[in-house]
Amino acid sequence: MRTIWWQDQTVHLIDQTKLPHQEIIVECRDYPDVANAIATMQIRGAPAIGVTAAYGVALGAWRAPADSVPDLLAQLQPVYETLRATRPTAVNLFWGIDKMRRYADAVAAGTDDADEVRRLLLAEAERLADEDVATNRRMGEYGAALIEDGMNVLTHCNTGALAVVDYGTALGVIRAAWEQGKHIHVWVDETRPFLQGARLTAWELMKLGIPMTLISDNMAGHFMRRGQVDAVFVGADRIAANGDVANKIGTYSVAVLAHENGIPFYSVIPVSTLDLSLASGEQIPIEERDPREVTHIQGVPIAPEGVHVANPAFDVTPNRYVTAIVTNRGVVYPPFEEGLRRVVAESEGNV
Amino acid sequence: MRTIWWQDQTVHLIDQTKLPHQEIIVECRDYPDVANAIATMQIRGAPAIGVTAAYGVALGAWRAPADSVPDLLAQLQPVYETLRATRPTAVNLFWGIDKMRRYADAVAAGTDDADEVRRLLLAEAERLADEDVATNRRMGEYGAALIEDGMNVLTHCNTGALAVVDYGTALGVIRAAWEQGKHIHVWVDETRPFLQGARLTAWELMKLGIPMTLISDNMAGHFMRRGQVDAVFVGADRIAANGDVANKIGTYSVAVLAHENGIPFYSVIPVSTLDLSLASGEQIPIEERDPREVTHIQGVPIAPEGVHVANPAFDVTPNRYVTAIVTNRGVVYPPFEEGLRRVVAESEGNV
Repeated sequence: MRTIWWQDQTVHLIDQTKLPHQEIIVECRDYPDVANAIATMQIRGAPAIGVTAAYGVALGAWRAPADSVPDLLAQLQPVYETLRATRPTAVNLFWGIDKMRRYADAVAAGTDDADEVRRLLLAEAERLADEDVATNRRMGEYGAALIEDGMNVLTHCNTGALAVVDYGTALGVIRAAWEQGKHIHVWVDETRPFLQGARLTAWELMKLGIPMTLISDNMAGHFMRRGQVDAVFVGADRIAANGDVANKIGTYSVAVLAHENGIPFYSVIPVSTLDLSLASGEQIPIEERDPREVTHIQGVPIAPEGVHVANPAFDVTPNRYVTAIVTNRGVVYPPFEEGLRRVVAESEGNV
Repeated sequence: MRTIWWQDQTVHLIDQTKLPHQEIIVECRDYPDVANAIATMQIRGAPAIGVTAAYGVALGAWRAPADSVPDLLAQLQPVYETLRATRPTAVNLFWGIDKMRRYADAVAAGTDDADEVRRLLLAEAERLADEDVATNRRMGEYGAALIEDGMNVLTHCNTGALAVVDYGTALGVIRAAWEQGKHIHVWVDETRPFLQGARLTAWELMKLGIPMTLISDNMAGHFMRRGQVDAVFVGADRIAANGDVANKIGTYSVAVLAHENGIPFYSVIPVSTLDLSLASGEQIPIEERDPREVTHIQGVPIAPEGVHVANPAFDVTPNRYVTAIVTNRGVVYPPFEEGLRRVVAESEGNV
């Protein structure tokens, strides 16, 4: 299952706001459609957002009327800006856009054929998508070594195939352990307010046939205290140079509860989720989303009209609660600064 | 606002499953209706359950066909049993039933008029209801001293007027501080899966005009870490002799997060919520409720059909996370054993 693909000069993606009840494909015909799909969380998950933004840039190039390469580069500027403005926390968004921008500038220097630039940008987006799948497989292998036969693992939000192009980050690790024949059981936090766990992770695990139990977020601690959770695996939307993890709201609570109960806590990410420009997680902007996500569930009001609401979409887990960070370049243990610098350097040397 | 009252030989109560969208009064004409109202959580909250059960016994007596006192006592046995079987965790349920049973046995020894026993049982239920309100006011006074002007307090579940006969336990403390003129702001956990916070606490605070912000449960830790929570006040469904607190699922997580962030955590309860017969919270039975409370919200499915679910309604917070227990007999600090024994002894001496 791919969450996003290019077909007939259109970006196709699975509308994740409609899952698990309806499987609807969104067709984005120009870059504002892509921006809207990201902003409304029809597509979400840090790696998926990065690749979607890359496709958005390619789509913007294909729809731009420019005849010349300089005109095309100029017409790509609003594409970059519009896509950048969709979501503030996931660093993969900026990574995907910046990759495409640098690539566009580079290829533009070597041709005066605007259509060739268009073709190359599409090929680059396709390459990033394929690379994402390979990256997930590698993380799966590294991470699965941390899961023993018979373990109960807990996950928060959705980090499966739907959060990436295919396979998954934290859920990819769980899936890899399962594919290795390990008998595991997964506790799935429903992940309020957007219910990515209940709607998406539960759906993916059921499709894969992996034993699981859905719980509301506030039950995780209860099962940890009773010794029914052996490890926690989550993704991340951005990780700072010191290993502080910005991830879906509720991750910090899970991490503190795991720490208090002596349970290892792992964040699983491609290197593109690292942001070494930030010394610590305190500098990561936290997206505040529509109060309606809290007050309404699938259109049904669950609180009094006019109630005052906070809806931070992410939180920051300080590095002291993080046992290790699983990347596509290996597992990094504390102190994180050095290890994270190393995997980024290796990754850049390889690109 | 009273949540429960006797009128025309019928027990009336506000249907809390319909709030905040509809204010519907349930009329219970015999004790099975009362049992059903408790089991389906049309009425909930430990103290309210205790008083409701007492009214249920009175109602059972009024509807029993017995002409003689011995027959009436015999016909009350299935009333006690049916009411006891409704919910396993809240000790106030058993407290209310046992109070009425002992009272019935005592008055039966002094009369051969079954109708007099009926009248006395109703009077006793009314007395317990009135006593509950007075108890809440006293807890409010004791607890409000712990809240300083300008504080941000966090609460979980609903412990307001709706959880008792009137006024509230933990929310009564918050209300008392507000009535003393203290400027406070309340963080309200929505309290999945039954959403007592979003539906009931938010509704009560808005009616009272107390500034509040509704959040999903997994946001509480985030705001604690950012220094935006100064104290936590919750109720309890049962507290063991050592001060372990059984309360609404999610309470343990809130307590651990408060502890980790140096925030005081208070449980506010009438003495009737103490169960000194249990040495620790590990012995408290935890009610497992219908999976549909997790998979559906107001009838709308939020998870794949057939998903496996856990739905423990309560959790146990070990006493080391509890700063103090606020009772109608004063504030008890650790070590709890001695202080809790003292308030129970004082209370029994007074009855």
